[in-house]
Amino acid sequence: MSAPVVNAPVANALVEALGADLVRTAPGDLAPHLTDWRGQKTGHADALLLPRSTSDVERIVRTCGEAGIALVPQGGNTGLVGGSVPEPEPAGPVAILSLRRMNRVLSTDPAGLSMVVEAGAILADVHAAAEAAGCRFPLSLGSRGSATIGGLVSTNAGGVQVLRHGTMRALVLGLEAVLPDGSRLDQLTALRKDNTGYDLKQLLIGAEGTLGVVTRVALKLAPPLSARATAWAGVTGASAALALLARLRRAAGERVESFELISAEALDLVLERIAGARQPLADRHPMNVLIDLEGPADLLETLLSEAHAAGEILDATVATSVSRAEALWRLREDIPIAEKQEGGAVKNDVSVAVSDVPAFHEAATELFARILPGSRPLVFGHLGDGNLHWNLRPPPGEAPGPWLVAHGETARRALHDLIASHNGSISAEHGIGTLKAAELARLGQPARLKAMRAVKAALDPAGLMNPGKLLS
Amino acid sequence: MSAPVVNAPVANALVEALGADLVRTAPGDLAPHLTDWRGQKTGHADALLLPRSTSDVERIVRTCGEAGIALVPQGGNTGLVGGSVPEPEPAGPVAILSLRRMNRVLSTDPAGLSMVVEAGAILADVHAAAEAAGCRFPLSLGSRGSATIGGLVSTNAGGVQVLRHGTMRALVLGLEAVLPDGSRLDQLTALRKDNTGYDLKQLLIGAEGTLGVVTRVALKLAPPLSARATAWAGVTGASAALALLARLRRAAGERVESFELISAEALDLVLERIAGARQPLADRHPMNVLIDLEGPADLLETLLSEAHAAGEILDATVATSVSRAEALWRLREDIPIAEKQEGGAVKNDVSVAVSDVPAFHEAATELFARILPGSRPLVFGHLGDGNLHWNLRPPPGEAPGPWLVAHGETARRALHDLIASHNGSISAEHGIGTLKAAELARLGQPARLKAMRAVKAALDPAGLMNPGKLLS
Repeated sequence: MSAPVVNAPVANALVEALGADLVRTAPGDLAPHLTDWRGQKTGHADALLLPRSTSDVERIVRTCGEAGIALVPQGGNTGLVGGSVPEPEPAGPVAILSLRRMNRVLSTDPAGLSMVVEAGAILADVHAAAEAAGCRFPLSLGSRGSATIGGLVSTNAGGVQVLRHGTMRALVLGLEAVLPDGSRLDQLTALRKDNTGYDLKQLLIGAEGTLGVVTRVALKLAPPLSARATAWAGVTGASAALALLARLRRAAGERVESFELISAEALDLVLERIAGARQPLADRHPMNVLIDLEGPADLLETLLSEAHAAGEILDATVATSVSRAEALWRLREDIPIAEKQEGGAVKNDVSVAVSDVPAFHEAATELFARILPGSRPLVFGHLGDGNLHWNLRPPPGEAPGPWLVAHGETARRALHDLIASHNGSISAEHGIGTLKAAELARLGQPARLKAMRAVKAALDPAGLMNPGKLLS
Repeated sequence: MSAPVVNAPVANALVEALGADLVRTAPGDLAPHLTDWRGQKTGHADALLLPRSTSDVERIVRTCGEAGIALVPQGGNTGLVGGSVPEPEPAGPVAILSLRRMNRVLSTDPAGLSMVVEAGAILADVHAAAEAAGCRFPLSLGSRGSATIGGLVSTNAGGVQVLRHGTMRALVLGLEAVLPDGSRLDQLTALRKDNTGYDLKQLLIGAEGTLGVVTRVALKLAPPLSARATAWAGVTGASAALALLARLRRAAGERVESFELISAEALDLVLERIAGARQPLADRHPMNVLIDLEGPADLLETLLSEAHAAGEILDATVATSVSRAEALWRLREDIPIAEKQEGGAVKNDVSVAVSDVPAFHEAATELFARILPGSRPLVFGHLGDGNLHWNLRPPPGEAPGPWLVAHGETARRALHDLIASHNGSISAEHGIGTLKAAELARLGQPARLKAMRAVKAALDPAGLMNPGKLLS
């Protein structure tokens, strides 16, 4: 797909109103902003707007509001559900509002464990700034070199440390945003407590840019880890993994930082596809867990010995060096890359209550053995959060491309129906965007959808903020 | 003040529509629900409604919506800002919707660290149920024997463990509520992650019953403390206290559970007024801190020795027994009781960024020395959260009653102006209710107030949910 030519009158009007510095209209400038990270969707826009400050964003939102130009806020454009690019055939004029120029770390306060950044600040830069101040920002994910804080806030991003630190929602102390009417909501002060009415910042977190544009964020930092121990364990299944998690938390409380689940098939694929990947344990086990704990390695070793004696784990290895720990983590982080090299899969991002994971996993396995015989589950995820990437590959020998076209939609809907029967979420961490908007409309509670639409209409009556996303 | 007689036609219509079991109309039944905890305000209502289930609440909200009867949701009626009682002169018919009958703990899931309760469940009962399941619910406050979970959710309650565990907002995994249109919002499942649109439960948390009625809540539990160490330290002031906090967090990370500030004057008052209260340290110090740490007593002792050597503290004592720790905590918890016995004070509940506490405290002290010479600050609070109860007593020898009438309002407004200049909050944990509604309207950001009113109008167009509260 290629983007159609921009609407010249709209583009010219924007240049006139906002000045040439803030506006790009050349197709070559727009192109990188029109296609999403997965390459699934290419949209159309009439201009790319590049504010340098919150005042610029206010001017942009007012100008576009008056002219009826829709805005698609964009950070690092690393979203996985099509939320950060415009639609291919928009109903009216559209501009992309990129926050990339607003990428500064404005202040760090190590004593108060907080940091204020502009929305376009890149996650990896925020990590570095926090570390330079003797703290850490405890949220990380694969796209950390491109993802921006504003995008992470707007999608309530998760990652591998949610178990201990929560999603982005729990790490935002305050924020500044420009609302659809062009007014500035300033809730930026890093207040730990503020009970003066509706928490509008919580409404903006996870709203995918449909209720306004996040411009600055006050982040909660964590003290540095006193010590870090990493281990890989083989288990018989999800139930045993949960028993191990309960044991670790009894002994180490909230110092369990990450607890990831990796199925045998997911590990097989990484070992097969990724150069240099090495088998972590002597034998192949039905499921594996990857554990990060704040504490000394010998504590983790003792706990795993006890778990082994109790029959909860089959085997385990504790990393003896930082490089060994990193190698174990790469086995987990390379799963999506290996999957992509293999030709893709039906990708899912679902969650259930933590204690319901084993039953859900069993039910899903049975379901697809029945409705798509031969299809192969590829399961991994954040077990401590009840969040599984419960993906599905074609039967051996079938070409993924045609199989995905033929069965992808059916498989996704069937899994979502099962999730609904478990009172789970069809999008645990990736959001809705356009990819899941129809499924949300199909499976969402009518009372909830009605209230969401009422809130949207109240704050964005003209429907100009990221149209087509989230609420279809 | 006494409540006027109920409006008989309204009361009769409710009995007719809902059945006698759910409706009380006798003034004697209504009376305890009409006056707030502090005895500051007595309102009028035409009926008391006592649902037994969420279905009852749905029927009540629909029935009252059709009849134009306003509803005042009420839990333990322990709120401090007049939010849980009706207005003295309501504009139309009003019923109190008490959740007290819906007080069951429905389930506990120790492995998933969660618990589901009805909104009327009393906090102390929730603590007991969590402990019986080998976990703990880490939010506590003085009114725990009466306060209900629904009220704590609706006011986003805080307390002494916010430093580590956050306010109620951070402890709600899911909730069920009846919205103003009578529909049921079911977000009860204890999902750790769910990114399927606007987080309506966050909107209901802290909404003070103005956007709907919380009926059930899924709570996040914490693992039991592995060990608890409690200490009292004397310091020169808030800056030294913050240096100590930073030291503790560097060494013990998030295991610092509580970090409370108590001024010399607050301690003096408790020692003077409360039978059995004993001086914790040999000397009187300008400020004191009370610390709870998850860990062994000798760790805390070592850290305090280091802090002493660094000049951060003047003296300290580590509790050597549970009863000694409880005695130290009583010195903190009895401050409001001692204050009340003394005849009252201008009570405030403000917050600033944690690192700004010393500067704010100094500025407030100077301000009142100038505008109300002789008045005596009585300061205590949750230093780790930047939340101070920065109260003010009359000059020595002046009767509190008349002094409060003469100067209370001026003092409160002056402190709020100062808070505004520090980008702080005029209500850190108590909420707005009716007591602070005018101050919120005066000092709140226009953009924020406008958006709040738009959300209120969108979800409760008839304005029947807890009218007069929060948004004046």
